[in-house]
Amino acid sequence: MNVTQIIRKVQESVSLSKEEIYYVIENYHQENLPVYQMSALLMAIYFKGLNLDEKRFLTKAMLESGIKVDWPEPAIMVDKHSTGGTGDKTSILLAPLLACMGYKVPMMAGRGLGHTGGTLDKLESLDGYNVNLDLKAFKKCVLEVGASIIGQTNDLCPADKKLYALRDVTATVSSLPLITASIVSKKVAEGVSSIVYDVKTGSGAFIKKYDDSIKLAESLVETSKELGLNATALITDMSQPLGRTVGNAIEMQECFEIMQNFKESKKLYGDTVDLTLELCAQLIFKKESTPKTESINKAVKLFESGKVFEKALEMFKAQGWTGKELKLADHHIEHSPFKKSGYVDKIDNESVGWASVELGGGRKKLEDLIDSEVGFYFYKKIGDFVEKDEPVVKIYYNDKAKLESAIKLLDQSFSLSDTQPETPKLIRKAI
Amino acid sequence: MNVTQIIRKVQESVSLSKEEIYYVIENYHQENLPVYQMSALLMAIYFKGLNLDEKRFLTKAMLESGIKVDWPEPAIMVDKHSTGGTGDKTSILLAPLLACMGYKVPMMAGRGLGHTGGTLDKLESLDGYNVNLDLKAFKKCVLEVGASIIGQTNDLCPADKKLYALRDVTATVSSLPLITASIVSKKVAEGVSSIVYDVKTGSGAFIKKYDDSIKLAESLVETSKELGLNATALITDMSQPLGRTVGNAIEMQECFEIMQNFKESKKLYGDTVDLTLELCAQLIFKKESTPKTESINKAVKLFESGKVFEKALEMFKAQGWTGKELKLADHHIEHSPFKKSGYVDKIDNESVGWASVELGGGRKKLEDLIDSEVGFYFYKKIGDFVEKDEPVVKIYYNDKAKLESAIKLLDQSFSLSDTQPETPKLIRKAI
Repeated sequence: MNVTQIIRKVQESVSLSKEEIYYVIENYHQENLPVYQMSALLMAIYFKGLNLDEKRFLTKAMLESGIKVDWPEPAIMVDKHSTGGTGDKTSILLAPLLACMGYKVPMMAGRGLGHTGGTLDKLESLDGYNVNLDLKAFKKCVLEVGASIIGQTNDLCPADKKLYALRDVTATVSSLPLITASIVSKKVAEGVSSIVYDVKTGSGAFIKKYDDSIKLAESLVETSKELGLNATALITDMSQPLGRTVGNAIEMQECFEIMQNFKESKKLYGDTVDLTLELCAQLIFKKESTPKTESINKAVKLFESGKVFEKALEMFKAQGWTGKELKLADHHIEHSPFKKSGYVDKIDNESVGWASVELGGGRKKLEDLIDSEVGFYFYKKIGDFVEKDEPVVKIYYNDKAKLESAIKLLDQSFSLSDTQPETPKLIRKAI
Repeated sequence: MNVTQIIRKVQESVSLSKEEIYYVIENYHQENLPVYQMSALLMAIYFKGLNLDEKRFLTKAMLESGIKVDWPEPAIMVDKHSTGGTGDKTSILLAPLLACMGYKVPMMAGRGLGHTGGTLDKLESLDGYNVNLDLKAFKKCVLEVGASIIGQTNDLCPADKKLYALRDVTATVSSLPLITASIVSKKVAEGVSSIVYDVKTGSGAFIKKYDDSIKLAESLVETSKELGLNATALITDMSQPLGRTVGNAIEMQECFEIMQNFKESKKLYGDTVDLTLELCAQLIFKKESTPKTESINKAVKLFESGKVFEKALEMFKAQGWTGKELKLADHHIEHSPFKKSGYVDKIDNESVGWASVELGGGRKKLEDLIDSEVGFYFYKKIGDFVEKDEPVVKIYYNDKAKLESAIKLLDQSFSLSDTQPETPKLIRKAI
């Protein structure tokens, strides 16, 4: 096959055949296709997109580059995938919740990327927690405990891994069809039958514009369905951090508080709780047509009874947690970006994420080590009134220079208003 | 510098700085920039274009990757560049004509590319003609004879050569700003002060749509001016072969006939002659504001007096021609694509070019040898009436299988009409 002709087809919006897409992916994976042609093709796809058939072929080609996890019959395998945001810790609550509801959750999660935190990084603030279980141990944990959260293993979708590395250095990460095929292929490889996507929108999301978030959600859902998954999506707000904490141990702490003391912590961490409940209810609604209120009531009871907390502890321990308490940095200060009183108006939530990276909570380079002890606790969120000199955030830090860089970014990301702005709506749309 | 950020700027229509463009070109040329990033950048430019400043920087960066030919002061250095078409042999007439008018013509021409013939391939049908003069011999020929036509030497714009090879395999050859920078950098490197571009439009051109041809012509002229050249362009018809011949020796023969026997051959080869005269007049008009009719009259006299022919022979001999006569293939047939009478209506002129390639007159692969003896002589052009069984073309061939492939293509490229169509206008626009 002539790869230049394949590229030209994409340029001219002529559909690629299954054979052409498989040819490209297989040969690139086996290093038989020049990398410069692959990157030209990726950029052409970035500008021209792919239709549903093409996305299906691309997803399958990546899927078939590796193994697919198989599960014994009666188990109902489900998962959630978030497109990533600032302070998003719902996976840590949702996995044990779904396990309590009788589902099996084989969750392969990610590390922090850019300004966003990663579920794996957060879990690693638990002393001894192993995100690199081998496939056998992973399966055992999922089937016996009901849930396991690990990193992607190398034998799942290796072509996607290779392609992602190329997208990263050729500015083609944000292409919707490429994002779609990358995510869906991995979810199908996990062997789940149902999936709920949490597609973030707003300043702290990778895809910030609402219309683009809808497009991505639709693309994920329709492509997943083509691959035989029962799929649904919520488009959810990322115009401010989710919950009150951004960091690693500190976000785990928020999860612990919610699970340990659900009723009271719901007031403090309402959006974290609500998003967890809504994602759970949306997944079950799509799967079994159960009314959402029914699932939410059931989930609330499971939280209130302490069963979700029990399940979470069981999972953490099955993955190696020693039981040692979470540790926050010894140094902390309280801070306000404002010099006068007023309402918190807008937050550049991506900058908040980058402030966390500056503090040491994320990576600037691949080889950077994460400081799990640092992070932010936000006393105020959008719509809250701030008195002059009243603290907006408590910052846990281990390095003064890093603290200063973080504060510089934080100060630029908050704006104040004399009138009370509307509180952002958490769930923008269900797909 | 961060190349991914540079690519992202192009994606988002943010102008690149001089430093960024030089960084990319210099480092790619010196093999310090990954080829996959260069090809992603080329594809982003393919879709988003470059503004005039960016084109100027790109052209200069490619120019400065090599040497610029210097010429002694009083000599007035001029050149013509054609974007390529079927049967286009004007360079071979124009170079000696301009030399007769007192200009110096350091013409670096090209080989056949795709369906189009190349001036160098045509000249090589002259026994002994050397298109690879070194720079010293080239300069001597230009200054003493007044004109020389050779291939591009390796020390001019080497970064362009490297980039062109990458564009060829990444489907980015047809990008207007990349075409512009590639052409203009080479013309500036030749050391000319004035240039006329012959931008082809229609079925036999690389850029077939009239509007796109205008854009390319404007881009070439404005970028050349930015680089200090006195530049102008004609947009000219390529909806049928120029003149009556397509091939190598046979096109040289058309040129010989015109130069030897101007008055009579003008009737047969009117468009070849007119285009040569118009390009000459346009160049001089732009340079010295001389009315076009005045230059045309002067040119006609130089042709009629035999001086252009004399100059051409002088140039051919200075470049090694032994004086041996042009040789056409011994085998030839007369052929018509039509089974009935009517007017020649439309010609798929790109297919005519490919038919010449099939016959052996061009290359399918880089390493193919050209058969200079084969070619077409068209008795009929658009608007001419053809009787049933009257020949439309005489085909010179050396291989029966190749003849059959060529005829198959030719038969598909001609269409017939009951009513006489308008003759295509040769000069569509001056820029």
